[in-house]
Amino acid sequence: MRIPYAEMKNLFEKILIKYGFPEETASRAARMFTDNSCDGVYSHGLNRFPRVLSYVSKGHIDPHAEPVLEESFGAIERWNGNRGMGCTNAAAAMDRAMDLAARHGIGCVALANTNHWMRGGSYGLQAARAGYMAICWTNTRPNMPPWGARDIRIGNNPLVMAFPVKDAPLVIDGALAQFSYGALESHRLAGKQLPVPGGYDPEGKLTTDPAAIEETWRVLPIGFWKGSGYSLALDMIGAVLSKGNSVHQVGRYEDEIALTQVFIAFDAEKTSGRNYAEETAAAILEDLKSAAPAEPGGSFFYPGEKAAFTRIDNMEKGIPVVEEIWNSLLKELE
Amino acid sequence: MRIPYAEMKNLFEKILIKYGFPEETASRAARMFTDNSCDGVYSHGLNRFPRVLSYVSKGHIDPHAEPVLEESFGAIERWNGNRGMGCTNAAAAMDRAMDLAARHGIGCVALANTNHWMRGGSYGLQAARAGYMAICWTNTRPNMPPWGARDIRIGNNPLVMAFPVKDAPLVIDGALAQFSYGALESHRLAGKQLPVPGGYDPEGKLTTDPAAIEETWRVLPIGFWKGSGYSLALDMIGAVLSKGNSVHQVGRYEDEIALTQVFIAFDAEKTSGRNYAEETAAAILEDLKSAAPAEPGGSFFYPGEKAAFTRIDNMEKGIPVVEEIWNSLLKELE
Repeated sequence: MRIPYAEMKNLFEKILIKYGFPEETASRAARMFTDNSCDGVYSHGLNRFPRVLSYVSKGHIDPHAEPVLEESFGAIERWNGNRGMGCTNAAAAMDRAMDLAARHGIGCVALANTNHWMRGGSYGLQAARAGYMAICWTNTRPNMPPWGARDIRIGNNPLVMAFPVKDAPLVIDGALAQFSYGALESHRLAGKQLPVPGGYDPEGKLTTDPAAIEETWRVLPIGFWKGSGYSLALDMIGAVLSKGNSVHQVGRYEDEIALTQVFIAFDAEKTSGRNYAEETAAAILEDLKSAAPAEPGGSFFYPGEKAAFTRIDNMEKGIPVVEEIWNSLLKELE
Repeated sequence: MRIPYAEMKNLFEKILIKYGFPEETASRAARMFTDNSCDGVYSHGLNRFPRVLSYVSKGHIDPHAEPVLEESFGAIERWNGNRGMGCTNAAAAMDRAMDLAARHGIGCVALANTNHWMRGGSYGLQAARAGYMAICWTNTRPNMPPWGARDIRIGNNPLVMAFPVKDAPLVIDGALAQFSYGALESHRLAGKQLPVPGGYDPEGKLTTDPAAIEETWRVLPIGFWKGSGYSLALDMIGAVLSKGNSVHQVGRYEDEIALTQVFIAFDAEKTSGRNYAEETAAAILEDLKSAAPAEPGGSFFYPGEKAAFTRIDNMEKGIPVVEEIWNSLLKELE
């Protein structure tokens, strides 16, 4: 089943308004959830929408909250997300980081007390489409053992980087765990092994078996000790810049709320002049594409490239939906 | 064989002066090479020093060059390294990024046309010891296939993050390849397997055999597709901010020279007040250390912690050296 973009956005918007969101917030959030599904990131589009509504019902997400500036230091500002909608809070923070970058070359917003940003790549795309380069990250609840330990203490703290490329911006959006819990679950349900090792089995051996990893919860940081270190550093930097919660403090809540995020934007045109970024990207990507694929006759993509194809396809043919989830949302308006 | 810190630094300094470096540059560089060995990073201390001298002799490193400001955009500046000594250029860039951060909260220096920075962690430590949080990276010559491809196109572009922690700053300093070529070689020479998979064998299978990876040169990015994406993004951002070489352009030189680096500093005290960073780190690390180790009775460390122990030990007992390399350097002054 496929749903046209406008129809999906319209449904999300109406439901959010029913849940108490002001029209402007409802409209921006609805567009963002629809974009996520449209770009093929279904897990953080339609499929996540019901849980977001449940967080509003539980009082975790305050529909009336707006992010508020707490303190300015020049090129960096600290904002309070006031437990508002995570995706619109994050988009407002990236907007503001770009404003600061337009003035200072680089701009940074540290956002405390916000909610799950859904698809981190959204904020990379947002910056790259406006001609900015960006680095941003969020912390999470504790969901990974630090390297060398057995117990969960660190977050998988997704780290996003983005660069303006004509037609399809380069956006790398990855959790610092090799696989999210959602990815482990979906592989297990599909009866599939992971494509590469994702964690440890009960005997302490690396495995591609999602069920074995779910027994130990010992998921693997990317690059083993390296991702573990980056996760810690990003959490610390975010906690200090925002004066918000670090991962272990987020872990005290019943659900994953009151998160800390950091948004850094670089103004490409201001620092290097018009077209320099696009020309640089074109030269780098031309060199990249001249490599032979790993599998003879195969192909490979830069991060963000496939999403652009999916977007075009889903705009034309409608966005694929899980019928059960779509129908459950239709009932929200009955 | 162990050499006292002062003796090693003194030898390096005298040799650098003999090779034409001004006293101030020679002294700072000598201290940095000695610190690297003293902290246990022998590969980028004494052991690398002879190659650095050969680069001076070849004309790759200009002993008289100083980094020069090319353009300022407020909180971000573009500098030209003028092919000077990589480590002192990088240290000057981080110093300047901290100056900018003291004024704007965040500061960034993009450095073009510089040389290998040796140990990336140096610049993290430098910032953290001065009370700054930092993120910095360098590009490299092409040395890794992008994810999905067989041919080398991207760099392993080391990425460093640092945070002030009393006594032992947190510094994570990692190439975006799971193992450097040096690490593959040293494992092979020692007849050892890698502790985790590091690349592909000639049959296209993941392997821990360093010799098999050296046959294909298909080294693994950290996190597979993720590290490949971060490598690309960091190269693009650096190339645009610095207007310097991107990885594929560095690959046109005979040796690894004329690199691009980016240094970002955040002023912890300015943004959150005195002691906030250290208290935040202490709370996060206390929680971290409460985890059970992976091996019963084992222990684990945060990144930067072990280097601090090694430093104390080597300051007391002298710095371990490979006698052959040490003696070859003594001959430089004969």
